Amino acid sequence: MAQMNKESARVDHGKLYRFVTLVFQKLGVSEQDAKIAAQVLVMADLRGVDSHGVMRLNLHTWYVKGLRDGEINPRPKIEVVSEAPSVALVDGDGGLGMVVGHRAMEVAIKKAAEVGVGLVGVRNSRHFGMAACYAMLALPHDMIGISMTNASRQVVPTFGSEARYGTNPLCLAAPCGAELPFVLDMATTTAAAGKLEVAARLGGMIPLGWALDEKQRPTRDPRAAQKARRLLPLGGTREGGSHKGYGLGIMVEILSGILTGTIAALGSRESAARGHFFGAINIGSFRPVEEFKRDMDTLLRELKSTPPMEGEERVFFAGEIEHETAEERTAKGIPLHRSVLDGLRELSRELSISYDLE
Amino acid sequence: MAQMNKESARVDHGKLYRFVTLVFQKLGVSEQDAKIAAQVLVMADLRGVDSHGVMRLNLHTWYVKGLRDGEINPRPKIEVVSEAPSVALVDGDGGLGMVVGHRAMEVAIKKAAEVGVGLVGVRNSRHFGMAACYAMLALPHDMIGISMTNASRQVVPTFGSEARYGTNPLCLAAPCGAELPFVLDMATTTAAAGKLEVAARLGGMIPLGWALDEKQRPTRDPRAAQKARRLLPLGGTREGGSHKGYGLGIMVEILSGILTGTIAALGSRESAARGHFFGAINIGSFRPVEEFKRDMDTLLRELKSTPPMEGEERVFFAGEIEHETAEERTAKGIPLHRSVLDGLRELSRELSISYDLE
Repeated sequence: MAQMNKESARVDHGKLYRFVTLVFQKLGVSEQDAKIAAQVLVMADLRGVDSHGVMRLNLHTWYVKGLRDGEINPRPKIEVVSEAPSVALVDGDGGLGMVVGHRAMEVAIKKAAEVGVGLVGVRNSRHFGMAACYAMLALPHDMIGISMTNASRQVVPTFGSEARYGTNPLCLAAPCGAELPFVLDMATTTAAAGKLEVAARLGGMIPLGWALDEKQRPTRDPRAAQKARRLLPLGGTREGGSHKGYGLGIMVEILSGILTGTIAALGSRESAARGHFFGAINIGSFRPVEEFKRDMDTLLRELKSTPPMEGEERVFFAGEIEHETAEERTAKGIPLHRSVLDGLRELSRELSISYDLE
Repeated sequence: MAQMNKESARVDHGKLYRFVTLVFQKLGVSEQDAKIAAQVLVMADLRGVDSHGVMRLNLHTWYVKGLRDGEINPRPKIEVVSEAPSVALVDGDGGLGMVVGHRAMEVAIKKAAEVGVGLVGVRNSRHFGMAACYAMLALPHDMIGISMTNASRQVVPTFGSEARYGTNPLCLAAPCGAELPFVLDMATTTAAAGKLEVAARLGGMIPLGWALDEKQRPTRDPRAAQKARRLLPLGGTREGGSHKGYGLGIMVEILSGILTGTIAALGSRESAARGHFFGAINIGSFRPVEEFKRDMDTLLRELKSTPPMEGEERVFFAGEIEHETAEERTAKGIPLHRSVLDGLRELSRELSISYDLE
């Protein structure tokens, strides 16, 4: 309570999880599904991916607005509509992407256990939050996990001046022996859209190469960039390799959108239908799991041992920083910005939930 | 013959294919395998990927040297050593990567026809040339094709000062209806290593963000960059998103090297063992192929219709430029630099093949 008037406060992750679960339940989601959705949001906050955490849980936007407006179905009938031994197409029935994604990844893991690989496409879902949540479900099964999703139009193709597709993130998670798992989770733009929001919220500038403004000029102003919705593909310019970031973004749209029948690149509404793509690869079908993990440890130690460049202290591998952040935040609480806390407080009043976060 | 003394000459692709086939045969490769290997090299030259074409067919390096020195096995026993319905691990027995890759992709396609997906890892192979050759084998089967390979150590992790892994390219090819197929084929560095070689050969400079020199400073000199073997991940700098390019490179090493048991990141010899990873996804297992192709056409037309930025004429999708280059070169011949032609002429003398290329 002492922290109430500060710019931000640390919130216990367990309390936050229970609060978010209640929010989804009050909006008509079953307890089981509300827990899944809450876990995805809180996991993003724990891992430092603030742009995909409870910052998105706000009366006026995204999940809450979608559920209240009927654009997101609180009680979806999620089902497999097409299937082969190593493949499934899942219809999300307009449900929360976090719930649909979780169920679809479970199908992928089951198939991988049976035939070596499971690839599952999802149609008619909604925004699924942080991609890593799904890919990481494969890790305890000694599998490599893959997840990706399409997103609404806000990225400019190389040589173009207008947005034509989405930030389309992709994630791959692989287990290790003694080392932390490798977890690559990246938007295929130079920076994720949520990073603009975080920069705008904190009042900072963004680097050139992230976005264009409404006059199609490179900009350092995150608010101008948000307004223009013209992010740049990873690489920034043709000379910097942006045709590769652009190609990766379209690859994700092909697997998440065209293979499933839910293209997102043609529209810009955040609450519109989304397609996803999940994969699970059973490591034991290729080689003994212990050998794989031993070699993962060897590779990751080799990367960590790289002499740092001048001015840097350490070389990381993908997922290390997020893991360390999660440990710190689990112990000390998740720092939430005052504006996010105000949003959650407003939500508690509107939905008659007691507010016990700070 | 009139062009003999010029800087370069146009060579008929059919003649080049027959010449290259003979070179491999003279080095002990069977006619059938020599044809596969020749096709991969000539296809790279046709598509304008000169860095992966006959520039690599030289008495003193790469394939020819490897076959002569016994580092590449001309008569490999390529076999499946581990298998599940949707997965195989193939041992390349030290054979030419082009031959091993071709056979492994055939296994992936067969499995995808049977169970929806085929993922095939390859161990103990060698450099396989242009990744697109393998992924594109899936297209006539109405499948999405995937190919990737690890490569020798020459890329610097984000925040690091020394190389720790390879350029590790990845490729995805997807069929369309009326439009050309989408073919993304990219090194996970800002620029492929071969691009330095092309720049050095032509006497040009390279952009900053491609590589460091031996003193770990950004360089514009392609020869200094080649000597230092310190390429930068896609993104160039941390601010530009190089942690994503770095993560993608390690993702490729995990799938091509650790899943198979042939890590390339620990060494720097070009002729050392390579691991590959291939995938075929049977589109019809997800949704009707005609619907997929119709949606591909819609997406790609939307991308092509993007208004270009000032100073640019067109917006492309991945694979368009390569396809147009192949059409032009099929009709008019492949332009080969004098130094490449000299190398082929030397090869013809050494191997007693008649030289009829110009």
